[in-house]
Amino acid sequence: MTRKLRMGMIGGGKDAFIGAIHRIAANMDGLIELVAGALSINPEVATESGKMLFLDPERTYTDFKTMLEKEAAMPADKRLDFVTIVTPNFAHFEPAMMALDLGFNVVIEKPITISLDEAKQLKAKVEATGLSLLLTHTYTGYPMVKQARQMVKNGDFGKIRKVWVEYPQGWLSKLSEREGNAQAAWRTDPKRSGKAGAMGDIGTHAFNLAEYITGAKLEKLCADLNIVVPGRALDDDGGVLLRFDNGASGVLMASQVAAGEENALKIRVYGEKGGLEWAQHEPNTLLVKWLDKPTEIYRAGNGYGFQSSYMTHNTRTPGGHPEGYLEAFGNLYRNFAQTLSAKIDGTQPSAESLDFPGVEEGIRGMAFIDNVVKSSQSDVKWTNFEI
Amino acid sequence: MTRKLRMGMIGGGKDAFIGAIHRIAANMDGLIELVAGALSINPEVATESGKMLFLDPERTYTDFKTMLEKEAAMPADKRLDFVTIVTPNFAHFEPAMMALDLGFNVVIEKPITISLDEAKQLKAKVEATGLSLLLTHTYTGYPMVKQARQMVKNGDFGKIRKVWVEYPQGWLSKLSEREGNAQAAWRTDPKRSGKAGAMGDIGTHAFNLAEYITGAKLEKLCADLNIVVPGRALDDDGGVLLRFDNGASGVLMASQVAAGEENALKIRVYGEKGGLEWAQHEPNTLLVKWLDKPTEIYRAGNGYGFQSSYMTHNTRTPGGHPEGYLEAFGNLYRNFAQTLSAKIDGTQPSAESLDFPGVEEGIRGMAFIDNVVKSSQSDVKWTNFEI
Amino acid sequence: MTRKLRMGMIGGGKDAFIGAIHRIAANMDGLIELVAGALSINPEVATESGKMLFLDPERTYTDFKTMLEKEAAMPADKRLDFVTIVTPNFAHFEPAMMALDLGFNVVIEKPITISLDEAKQLKAKVEATGLSLLLTHTYTGYPMVKQARQMVKNGDFGKIRKVWVEYPQGWLSKLSEREGNAQAAWRTDPKRSGKAGAMGDIGTHAFNLAEYITGAKLEKLCADLNIVVPGRALDDDGGVLLRFDNGASGVLMASQVAAGEENALKIRVYGEKGGLEWAQHEPNTLLVKWLDKPTEIYRAGNGYGFQSSYMTHNTRTPGGHPEGYLEAFGNLYRNFAQTLSAKIDGTQPSAESLDFPGVEEGIRGMAFIDNVVKSSQSDVKWTNFEI
Amino acid sequence: MTRKLRMGMIGGGKDAFIGAIHRIAANMDGLIELVAGALSINPEVATESGKMLFLDPERTYTDFKTMLEKEAAMPADKRLDFVTIVTPNFAHFEPAMMALDLGFNVVIEKPITISLDEAKQLKAKVEATGLSLLLTHTYTGYPMVKQARQMVKNGDFGKIRKVWVEYPQGWLSKLSEREGNAQAAWRTDPKRSGKAGAMGDIGTHAFNLAEYITGAKLEKLCADLNIVVPGRALDDDGGVLLRFDNGASGVLMASQVAAGEENALKIRVYGEKGGLEWAQHEPNTLLVKWLDKPTEIYRAGNGYGFQSSYMTHNTRTPGGHPEGYLEAFGNLYRNFAQTLSAKIDGTQPSAESLDFPGVEEGIRGMAFIDNVVKSSQSDVKWTNFEI
Repeated sequence: MTRKLRMGMIGGGKDAFIGAIHRIAANMDGLIELVAGALSINPEVATESGKMLFLDPERTYTDFKTMLEKEAAMPADKRLDFVTIVTPNFAHFEPAMMALDLGFNVVIEKPITISLDEAKQLKAKVEATGLSLLLTHTYTGYPMVKQARQMVKNGDFGKIRKVWVEYPQGWLSKLSEREGNAQAAWRTDPKRSGKAGAMGDIGTHAFNLAEYITGAKLEKLCADLNIVVPGRALDDDGGVLLRFDNGASGVLMASQVAAGEENALKIRVYGEKGGLEWAQHEPNTLLVKWLDKPTEIYRAGNGYGFQSSYMTHNTRTPGGHPEGYLEAFGNLYRNFAQTLSAKIDGTQPSAESLDFPGVEEGIRGMAFIDNVVKSSQSDVKWTNFEI
Repeated sequence: MTRKLRMGMIGGGKDAFIGAIHRIAANMDGLIELVAGALSINPEVATESGKMLFLDPERTYTDFKTMLEKEAAMPADKRLDFVTIVTPNFAHFEPAMMALDLGFNVVIEKPITISLDEAKQLKAKVEATGLSLLLTHTYTGYPMVKQARQMVKNGDFGKIRKVWVEYPQGWLSKLSEREGNAQAAWRTDPKRSGKAGAMGDIGTHAFNLAEYITGAKLEKLCADLNIVVPGRALDDDGGVLLRFDNGASGVLMASQVAAGEENALKIRVYGEKGGLEWAQHEPNTLLVKWLDKPTEIYRAGNGYGFQSSYMTHNTRTPGGHPEGYLEAFGNLYRNFAQTLSAKIDGTQPSAESLDFPGVEEGIRGMAFIDNVVKSSQSDVKWTNFEI
Repeated sequence: MTRKLRMGMIGGGKDAFIGAIHRIAANMDGLIELVAGALSINPEVATESGKMLFLDPERTYTDFKTMLEKEAAMPADKRLDFVTIVTPNFAHFEPAMMALDLGFNVVIEKPITISLDEAKQLKAKVEATGLSLLLTHTYTGYPMVKQARQMVKNGDFGKIRKVWVEYPQGWLSKLSEREGNAQAAWRTDPKRSGKAGAMGDIGTHAFNLAEYITGAKLEKLCADLNIVVPGRALDDDGGVLLRFDNGASGVLMASQVAAGEENALKIRVYGEKGGLEWAQHEPNTLLVKWLDKPTEIYRAGNGYGFQSSYMTHNTRTPGGHPEGYLEAFGNLYRNFAQTLSAKIDGTQPSAESLDFPGVEEGIRGMAFIDNVVKSSQSDVKWTNFEI
Repeated sequence: MTRKLRMGMIGGGKDAFIGAIHRIAANMDGLIELVAGALSINPEVATESGKMLFLDPERTYTDFKTMLEKEAAMPADKRLDFVTIVTPNFAHFEPAMMALDLGFNVVIEKPITISLDEAKQLKAKVEATGLSLLLTHTYTGYPMVKQARQMVKNGDFGKIRKVWVEYPQGWLSKLSEREGNAQAAWRTDPKRSGKAGAMGDIGTHAFNLAEYITGAKLEKLCADLNIVVPGRALDDDGGVLLRFDNGASGVLMASQVAAGEENALKIRVYGEKGGLEWAQHEPNTLLVKWLDKPTEIYRAGNGYGFQSSYMTHNTRTPGGHPEGYLEAFGNLYRNFAQTLSAKIDGTQPSAESLDFPGVEEGIRGMAFIDNVVKSSQSDVKWTNFEI
């Protein structure tokens, strides 16, 4: 890379959760500079947020359209390289389309849009413009998730037979959306969140992780979604039986009413010769299980001689220095930045840099939401996974 | 108790796995004496096994019928108090019926019989004779499982919403039944094992544990059973969506092809205010999770002041002396022995002693097998749990 | 073995802690029968305890001398094979000497005696009589401790460099000996317990475990013993720097005022190529660490092909059925019983059966107490380990 | 804060380990900008490193003196706010003194200098100039370490009695300093590293952590340092008995030859009513142990209502998003930046911002090295901790 990339942000004002995360992830490696923002539709919040982030007041906007237009008119050496969209789900599509039209690469917080149809239009636009899009499915940024994927790919476990993935949270155990929790309010509101609640918010992460690690594609599913907390508009819990295109079966469990749980995302994959277990709670460890040998504890940052280059590429420290969620998030940004820079510099990004989730993952995630809701409403056992 | 109880054993010859476990469980507390056995249908094995167990050669039999007849004719002070049946599933019913007819109480290794119909007949017989039957669903003998059940019963977690129970094993990852593994051979043979494989062998344990801890009854289910290893006759893996009569939903996962797993039985239950997590791997710990407080680590054998009397009754040592599978198994025997002795002595057994699995659990287990197989073969999503 | 062995017990009346443990351990495998007891010096307790244990009233004694004399006069087919002594420390020596003189083998709860001098006399007596003595250092009965010892012996870790062993408990955090806790009362009383408190009670276990696993002998030490709770007569806490005869150094930590801890015995050993970690809390797991490879999780009861025969000999169940403290204790009894039976039968006990702690471990334990107390009182850094 | 702070770096060229860590830590929160560097004494490396970091070539220097002089001459709106020194230990003192003399605040990687004498001079200089100094004792930046310290301070555990702190690593198990490992080379070289090896490198961290959490000061110690790997010049392992000024005793263990360990820093503290346990391996968890209640699992980022403001101030994400080593390091920088900015802005930094290690911790760390080496060489048991 020959220079820092310039980022603009849409959404993510001073009290937002995920915007702050994106900024840390983008800052971490010193490859990206936040230079513009339409951080809030509330002008006061927008201004204050811009100040807190040391933005040039001239590049602090109160609506994304103005920002995209003005920034598009900037000279090449000031112009944004990409735009990060961290608004609620319903407000992803419009700025993303406009950004692409104006020649900006795009980062979008997942889920990519509020509907599959929007996602498809976005995909067409990405393809038409040739620009890059990063969808921040954070968990695939963890080094030991990379290691897991590579071991499956290498055939270390033989043919994959079984996938169990679960994502329990407890934070929606009460009707918090009526108690002034802004996060809860939009995430449980179909107009802002889409047709699924827990399955859209965290089920999609579990689904994405399962497909990423196994390299298999979901083929059919049987879902049971529940609204556990009375008065809620969207599912806050569900279980899904899975069948993959490689013959593997599985189960996906996601709940936001698992009282006492934080973000206990965990995946287990089993093949003919062994299996793996990874949990976000302790992300630097990958348990590698064997049919006829003791279980091994693979640790991030170690050079055993047989570690994946994708693991080492996504680790900043030697073994024993725990990296976490922000580093995983930072890996998405770093890989995206390396890919953009290679384009700018006219070089070829490494396979490791190119390994970040994009519009394809976005489409599959939206299709997962559609299919899981459809299946849950159906009396027939199996629903084909259709896009 | 005024004397040791006298036990006879059917099956469980020298190389059998579960017979040896039953003997340790029965021996442990010095309340029971093994005095007779029809340990094998192979006369040589029967004799040799009798010697190894220091049995009187006169009470070492080669078939259960002779044993039951001869022992029934013994004087009261030598006569067996109960008979333990540890043959493969298909050979539970006949000796159990005969034993009850001759006035012996009965212990049966689970599943209770090879079919629901047999189980119903056995139930009728138990009721008609007024004798006692212990079904060795071992896992409900663990002290922290007792603690869990009592906390749910107390309403500590509020209304129960969610049950996740899983039992992964890896030992049938290969076609071991064709490679001389005797355990594998009968367990995967429908004639000897019944209509389910993994679901009958370990799925029933998971099901029993879920109903025991929550006190709820399964109402409907949606099952996906698989034969993963080609050439196998019965399911070796499966996932089941659950709906309970208290409104809770859940997921049950059981697999014998989860390569690298031992007996990773684990249950999580969530209610309105909190949840619990128990895993057989570390059975002396119960994780107690709360919506608004730190997770607590309850440990067996501790007197916090709010521990369940059922936990302490089923613990032999103070906190910090790990008890395990054999003690859990021993608890079943001890409670059964205390109950029989109370009958003999004309006293009332304690509620804690009466807390052991019996014919009702046997019926429900067989119905689980029937319903799970039926559901798996159906294209309709939900199957009602019918007995 | 051709018959069950006959055991008599001295001490261990109905409310005693360790007597009950010894009985479970002895019962478990059906190799030993409790037939006589001088269970309490309180005649009422002795009688009641005898009844509870279904002892013949004629063999229920109120003092050990009468018991030993009467039992010595029994005919060979009724005579005790061995005597188990579970009285407080000060009351080990006399019955042990008398039992040996009368031809009984002996089991003694640790520490072997109240002083090194007594231990030496006992050793001479054992040697003179040719009888067997089992000292119940429970922790060396765990299968994964056996595995650990064998791996060190095999040289799997290269030359051993480092030993860290710790035994934190919290149960003496208050002055419980003044609050009616009988266990606390005698264990903190120099007349009944000996010259060390925590170091005698649990420090000796840690010391024994370290020497057992490493095969090395302590050569010099530097101790800092503390009386943390004001008003206590003996040390309730301490740290000791260690030097072994193989050049390894180490640290031993033992405390009974580590509030909130149960019996958190743990040992770590490091050599040139790797190391091991074992903790009583989860005794079926041995962590095996390597310089250039992932850490491995060895689990009891598994046949990896390279497991120690000492591990498998001391395991009753296949992997995944957690065994615990009582089984470890039972292993000591089983190995002792197999050794005695071989003597009776005129056969050679296996190396695995002979592997139980005896008078030599007793001597070293008493010397540890002497030396650790001496070092703690000294201003010189290093104290030679003298016997 | 009204603007980003400007940082210059001395040392930390492209292949250095700790320089990169400092930059990530400084970048993370978008509060600091790296604008100048004397990154290597090798001009080529310096230039290349400057490029990789997108530094202005005019502010890329090849020696720290030139950098400090030139930067001191810059106008106020370009001038460095502080200088970070990440050279080997022997090369901390000179640039730090010069930086302070020229009016720059200073960040120094620990240990602060190569000798206690240098540390004292530095302290005098800091006091004379009124400038700020951050010493990067990373581990005290972890949120759950802050929580631990506050709970001790609050008296939650009563009077503190016991401290066990350990830092095992395995990376110096071989004579790596002779095999081309540059890290190993300088760290085991007395001229570049100082008079202690493992005790200086990691023992000081353990010591600092113990004093930080307990608020107690070490008063005397008894050390046993070892050179385990033949041919090494400095200690690679050691155990130390501790006595604190509040009456607590303790043990410190540090080793770089604990084969198979990464950075297994762990501390346990026990008081009258309970204790705590924290390990770097899983830094978001603090185990809180109680005498009469179940152990509690405190988790970073949770609002239990009784969490420390120091914990929340040093956490970037809600519970369940694991933060790690880089965030802990980032917390040091963030607190330092907030403190500097408050000075610049003429406001009062918060107590939470002021909570970062400085010259006082540096002095005590150097004194620890001196005293531990002195004690190890002495035949007398206790050495007073002297500064």
